[in-house]
Amino acid sequence: VITSAGNPRLKLLRRLHARRARERLGLFSCEGEDLVAAGLEAGLAPLEVLVDAARPPDLPVAGEPVEPTLLAEVCELAHPPRVVAVFRRDDLPRLDPAAAPPAGLALWRVADPGNVGTLLRAADALGPAFVALSPGCADPTGPKAARASMGALFRVPIGSFEEAPGPRVALVPAGGEPLGELMLGERATFVLGAEREGLPPDVRSACEAVATIPQRPGAESLNVAMAGTVALYEWRRHRA
Amino acid sequence: VITSAGNPRLKLLRRLHARRARERLGLFSCEGEDLVAAGLEAGLAPLEVLVDAARPPDLPVAGEPVEPTLLAEVCELAHPPRVVAVFRRDDLPRLDPAAAPPAGLALWRVADPGNVGTLLRAADALGPAFVALSPGCADPTGPKAARASMGALFRVPIGSFEEAPGPRVALVPAGGEPLGELMLGERATFVLGAEREGLPPDVRSACEAVATIPQRPGAESLNVAMAGTVALYEWRRHRA
Repeated sequence: VITSAGNPRLKLLRRLHARRARERLGLFSCEGEDLVAAGLEAGLAPLEVLVDAARPPDLPVAGEPVEPTLLAEVCELAHPPRVVAVFRRDDLPRLDPAAAPPAGLALWRVADPGNVGTLLRAADALGPAFVALSPGCADPTGPKAARASMGALFRVPIGSFEEAPGPRVALVPAGGEPLGELMLGERATFVLGAEREGLPPDVRSACEAVATIPQRPGAESLNVAMAGTVALYEWRRHRA
Repeated sequence: VITSAGNPRLKLLRRLHARRARERLGLFSCEGEDLVAAGLEAGLAPLEVLVDAARPPDLPVAGEPVEPTLLAEVCELAHPPRVVAVFRRDDLPRLDPAAAPPAGLALWRVADPGNVGTLLRAADALGPAFVALSPGCADPTGPKAARASMGALFRVPIGSFEEAPGPRVALVPAGGEPLGELMLGERATFVLGAEREGLPPDVRSACEAVATIPQRPGAESLNVAMAGTVALYEWRRHRA
C-alpha cells in the first residue's frame, strides 16, 4: 500500500496534470472505473494502475493500492475515484488520412475541454467519424476532455487539423446553406470554430461548402458541441 | 462602495447559492455582464445590481459598487464577474399550457445543471420551444444552469413536467422508431430522462410515440443535452 505523498507513482500522476508534461512524456492519466474500463476494452495496456486501498474497483487488471486520501489528492475530478490509470498517448487510435472514417469533425481552436470531449463522444455515437484538432484546441487526453468523452477517446481516431480529408463543410452560425438542404455525399468533414471567435476567413474559404443550422432569429447560437453533434446526426440521416 | 462582508446585500447573494433559499425567497442571482444584459433585454427589472468598484461594467442600469474581492467572494463561478444582479423568479417566462410554443422538451429527473442550461439554450435556438421540468431536475435559476443557458433562461417558457402539452415523444437510447422517420406533426414534446436512469416505464408508456436517435452499435449513447438538441433540430427540419 502506497502511504507516502512522495511516492514516484503519485508524483508522476501530479506531473500529468500539466499538458506540457503529458506531451513530453507521451502519457496521460484516466480517473474512474468507466474510463479505465473503456481503455482496457479498447486493448490499451496501462503503464500504471493505482487503486483506492479501502475500496478497490472490480476491473480485469491488478492495481497498486493507495491510501484513499493520497489518491484523492492526485486526482483532478470532484469525486475521488477508486482507480487511476496511466496510458500511452501513442496507443490511442490515430487518424490515417488514407483510411479515414467517412465523417469527421475538424475543430479550429476549440479550447474548452468539455466541448472537445463531448464532440469525441458525438463522433463515437454518430460515426464512424474522426476528430481533427488545430493548435489551440484543448488536449483530448486532459482529465475534463477524457471524462466528457465517456471513453470515446479510446475509440475515435484523432488527427491534426490539416490531416482531415475533404470534402470540408464549414459550419457557421449564420449565412451558410441550411444544413438539411446540403447535398452531402458519402464523405464529409465538418469544420467548426470556437463559440466567440468562429472560423477565420482563410479557414472558411478553404472549405468546399458553408452550412448553417437554421436557428430562431435573435437566439444565442448553439455551442460548438451541439452544432457538431447536429452535423453528424444530419450526415448519418442522409446516409441511411 | 460596499466594503464589509457583513453587508446585507452580500448576505442575500450568499443565501441565494442554496436552491432552498432561491425557492423560498422567489429570487435568484445572475453573474456576469452577458447574463445580466440578457435579463434586462428580456424586460426584467433587477432587485439588486452589484458591480465591481474597480471595473464597473457597461450596462444600462445603475449598480452598487462593491470591493472586488468581496464581490468575487459571493460569486460561484470561477472567473469573478464585474456584475451580479438579483431577479425575481416570477418574472421569468412561464409555460402557459393553453398557449404553449409548438415544440418542447419535458425533462425527467435531469439533475445536472449544465444539461438543463444547455437544453434551455437549445430550446431558444431551435424553437420556439418550452422546457418542462420534473421534480429532481436541476434548478434552472442556479448559477451553472443559468450560465449554460447563455441567457435563454430569460426567453424560454418553463413549466412543470405535467404541464407539457402533447403529443409526447419519448426519446430513448435504443429500441424506438428512428427519429428521422417519425411522422412529426406541427406540435411535439420530446420526453427525455437522465443519462444513467433513463425514463421509468410509466413515463415512457404515457407517451404517444417512442423514438431513438440512430447510433453506432456499441457506442456510449449521446448525453441528454445532445439528444434533446438533435430532437429539436429534427422537429424544426420537419417543419421547414
